[in-house]
Amino acid sequence: MAYGLAVVVTLAGVVPASGQSDEEASPIFGIRIPSGYRDWRLISVAHEEGSLNDLRAILGNDVAVKASQEGKLPYPDGTIIARLAWRYDPLEESEKAFGRSQSFVAGPPRNGVQFMVKDSRKYASTGGWGFAQFDDGKPAGEAMQSTCFPCHATVKSRDFVFNRYAP
Amino acid sequence: MAYGLAVVVTLAGVVPASGQSDEEASPIFGIRIPSGYRDWRLISVAHEEGSLNDLRAILGNDVAVKASQEGKLPYPDGTIIARLAWRYDPLEESEKAFGRSQSFVAGPPRNGVQFMVKDSRKYASTGGWGFAQFDDGKPAGEAMQSTCFPCHATVKSRDFVFNRYAP
Repeated sequence: MAYGLAVVVTLAGVVPASGQSDEEASPIFGIRIPSGYRDWRLISVAHEEGSLNDLRAILGNDVAVKASQEGKLPYPDGTIIARLAWRYDPLEESEKAFGRSQSFVAGPPRNGVQFMVKDSRKYASTGGWGFAQFDDGKPAGEAMQSTCFPCHATVKSRDFVFNRYAP
Repeated sequence: MAYGLAVVVTLAGVVPASGQSDEEASPIFGIRIPSGYRDWRLISVAHEEGSLNDLRAILGNDVAVKASQEGKLPYPDGTIIARLAWRYDPLEESEKAFGRSQSFVAGPPRNGVQFMVKDSRKYASTGGWGFAQFDDGKPAGEAMQSTCFPCHATVKSRDFVFNRYAP
């Protein structure tokens, strides 16, 4: 059994930082919400426009953060990257002070929480990565989960990871 | 000596996570860059439009994160909140795929790193908070540092802190 899978199995069924219990594994890749992911260190931040309309944070477990900092590819087995997102809300006090939109902050959670789990053997057919999205603690359906890899394939040259460590 | 000051003094002169050495305290409030702040846990994320034009992350030491999560005011002495910011960069691959701007990510550091340090006695005249900005590891000048408190006074009802914990 490869290391990445071992990590996921060990963490399975634990109540996540969000306080929602999650006993259910995602379809296709069989990923569960890693315990304590909300307390992981920050890799980077992002904003999605359009219908996604969110502010997001990319957090990583220790393996992920070390690999991101070093910038060496591919990411080692055991890497778990978490993508959190929140509604893109104007900051009321700022808008009042400037008389126009200026500051945008994280509102309530939005667009689920996503994970990438590196296990080069278990997930060999998808670049060594398992992908999962959870909405309110529940795994999204198979149709949604199947969209992850084709999009991440765009950045195959960066081992399928869009984000870079923000210093 | 109050706890908040003790923390800052203890951490003085240590090489920060950015790798830049910083022996210099900021004017007015005498704050030094806290060691290891880049590895602190995430409180929230934000985007500033206009000339600031950045993506930012709000990180906190353990006291800050606990207080943010609980949402109880005022923040206790010993709280340190860090504001990091990076250039607001379109993600090249996303722009190509969508044929328009869609995803924005953190570029190089921008607009300095800022800290709020709670010490209700030392900083009694500014709501119990000391404020500092560092550009490339060096404290910004007195003129810049003096702009912090008047702006944060806008959110006096939230103990002068703009951000809220993003769940």
